[in-house]
Amino acid sequence: MAGMSVFAPSTAFSAQEHDRPGFRLTVTEPLALDAGVSLAPYAIAYQTYGRLNADRSNAILICHALTGDQYVADPHPITGKPGWWDILAGPGKLLDTERYFLICANVLGGCMGSSGPAEINPATGLPWDLTFPVITIGDMVRAQKRLIDHLGIETLFCVIGGSMGGMQVLQWAASYPERVFSAVPIATAARHSAQNIAFHEVGRQAIMADANWCNGNYLAQGVRPERGLAVARMAAHITYLSEQALHRKFGRNLQNRQAITFGFDADFQVENYLRYQGASFSERFDANSYLYITRACDYFDLAAEHGGVLANAFKATKTRFCSISFTSDWLYPTSENRQVVHALNAAAANVSFVEVATDKGHDAFLLDEPEFHATLKGFMDGCAVHRGLTRT
Amino acid sequence: MAGMSVFAPSTAFSAQEHDRPGFRLTVTEPLALDAGVSLAPYAIAYQTYGRLNADRSNAILICHALTGDQYVADPHPITGKPGWWDILAGPGKLLDTERYFLICANVLGGCMGSSGPAEINPATGLPWDLTFPVITIGDMVRAQKRLIDHLGIETLFCVIGGSMGGMQVLQWAASYPERVFSAVPIATAARHSAQNIAFHEVGRQAIMADANWCNGNYLAQGVRPERGLAVARMAAHITYLSEQALHRKFGRNLQNRQAITFGFDADFQVENYLRYQGASFSERFDANSYLYITRACDYFDLAAEHGGVLANAFKATKTRFCSISFTSDWLYPTSENRQVVHALNAAAANVSFVEVATDKGHDAFLLDEPEFHATLKGFMDGCAVHRGLTRT
Repeated sequence: MAGMSVFAPSTAFSAQEHDRPGFRLTVTEPLALDAGVSLAPYAIAYQTYGRLNADRSNAILICHALTGDQYVADPHPITGKPGWWDILAGPGKLLDTERYFLICANVLGGCMGSSGPAEINPATGLPWDLTFPVITIGDMVRAQKRLIDHLGIETLFCVIGGSMGGMQVLQWAASYPERVFSAVPIATAARHSAQNIAFHEVGRQAIMADANWCNGNYLAQGVRPERGLAVARMAAHITYLSEQALHRKFGRNLQNRQAITFGFDADFQVENYLRYQGASFSERFDANSYLYITRACDYFDLAAEHGGVLANAFKATKTRFCSISFTSDWLYPTSENRQVVHALNAAAANVSFVEVATDKGHDAFLLDEPEFHATLKGFMDGCAVHRGLTRT
Repeated sequence: MAGMSVFAPSTAFSAQEHDRPGFRLTVTEPLALDAGVSLAPYAIAYQTYGRLNADRSNAILICHALTGDQYVADPHPITGKPGWWDILAGPGKLLDTERYFLICANVLGGCMGSSGPAEINPATGLPWDLTFPVITIGDMVRAQKRLIDHLGIETLFCVIGGSMGGMQVLQWAASYPERVFSAVPIATAARHSAQNIAFHEVGRQAIMADANWCNGNYLAQGVRPERGLAVARMAAHITYLSEQALHRKFGRNLQNRQAITFGFDADFQVENYLRYQGASFSERFDANSYLYITRACDYFDLAAEHGGVLANAFKATKTRFCSISFTSDWLYPTSENRQVVHALNAAAANVSFVEVATDKGHDAFLLDEPEFHATLKGFMDGCAVHRGLTRT
């Protein structure tokens, strides 16, 4: 049984932050998790943009990245900044809300309204904290499918996302091929590499090293491991940018000073930038949620779910795929994306692959990158014709 | 005035750890630091291996890396592990102690006996902590030169080092060209890049975020920011290895378990490895020292000291150079090493350059890497002939 309600405050983490427009689906039917336990009830907070057409054939599910959320194309309720894919999504834009019905749900384990460690466990009336079950990319997608069922959409026109969002795209295509007309995994991988796991572990240890983490029970103590979470973000943020982009943006430029100060202030612009990234992230994100979501990525290994053969994940798929990578992305490099393409080819899938030349690094999928956008537009338009979609 | 004494305990950080064999030079004549202040008295702790020949022409100064120390070729007094360049230095080895007189000094700002933030400020009788002046690579080399003067060595046969050690090599060649017969900068750079600074800043913030850091005054409090320092080390350690090496060594292998545990333990070998690296580093290194030494690297910009033209740093040099980089080193990649070589070429210097093909990453300079060793041997043997050196 599922009921849709307008968003209501429900968390100890930041009740006032949850007092924002948006939708929240509460599902009472248990969700069987990969960890071997069931979750019920659970909530999926989501945003939609545009209108579902009469055929229900124009829905695009956007899957957000690690620290993203459902605010794709309207101002973020905490930061007030434009939606994270505002550059792509909206009226007349590439993900045209006059043509498509866009859906984006906060992932399970997240901290923007979907069930996660910062939410209240209905059974105890207390925050879940570390008693929240450890979830996987598969669990995130399973929960999203309930939402798509609830919205009465049989086949998604497209599932699209970058980074961890791309992992969800691959999982959707593997788990529910008949529900996905087209799929766009961007700057992603079918499994987390040793280096990927290593960086995530650094972030988790930074959080856990913060005395305010309180073994995960910080909400009850009225504190938050803000500094540890900021350090985690700083380390991760470096991996989102290429060495070239850091050099181009900052080089060795000094921060509002004529000379180095022989101290530990942020003498260099790059230090100031990283500190800002860390601090602002800590203001909008929950530390335990960061632990859970990074863990879900680390556990992701789509081939392992299919006897060690990635091609088996896509056997007999009819989904049209467009895989996109970026030359300077060293977090999920082209080689990882290409492994997915090789598997799709081995499964005789309909797949196009473009490696976009850019110096912007992993974050290119969020930025104004003309070749990426042109590639995406060509693919989307072609699929729309096949799907018989016209402007609504 | 300078006096050499056998090593004596002198620090609040870990007095018992300083009760070890070795030499310590105490200099009373002030050292003019780049920060614009003078340091006096100061101590340089060092080790030697082999014998200085009658001509005093067979001395090799080995410059250690960020978290290295003077224990090049004998067991480390804290960890008991072999010296960090045991593979290269010793009787009959490439840096043959039957032929050469090897010297390695703990850098200024270090925590193995040279003056640094964990040592006692003689003026106050208290640990320096953050009142220790911020030092530079230039200051480290200036202090080393006092040691070389003290040892009565006019010309060093060779100055050699990798990583931050390579920066010192370049600084030696630029500051005291007439004192350096040959120079081997390995896996290094003439300036710290934005990405280099960024990783160091993450490490510093991890230390400063630890409640036990106590604004730098932890020694007086009887605590140490061990967890923050461990996180700093974990982040840095990833940069010492290539993605390929991490994949080859660990991949997604699990740590003594058959399946993932759906928790935050070290399920993966790479997590366990990083945790071990962080914890063991915290046992042997001082956190404030880490702040100072990383800062010295960040400040390093040899061209900036010479009107922005790196070639000017080596004008009219007669030193023979051998520059070595590693293909999979992304911390100080070949491109950075090549900039040094270009500058040396522009200065009409005698320089050879070899990029060694390896998947071992930055740490290759510490490992059994035959092509690196063969390159080094060829260069050293050639220089020895030119210098008229025979086995002592």
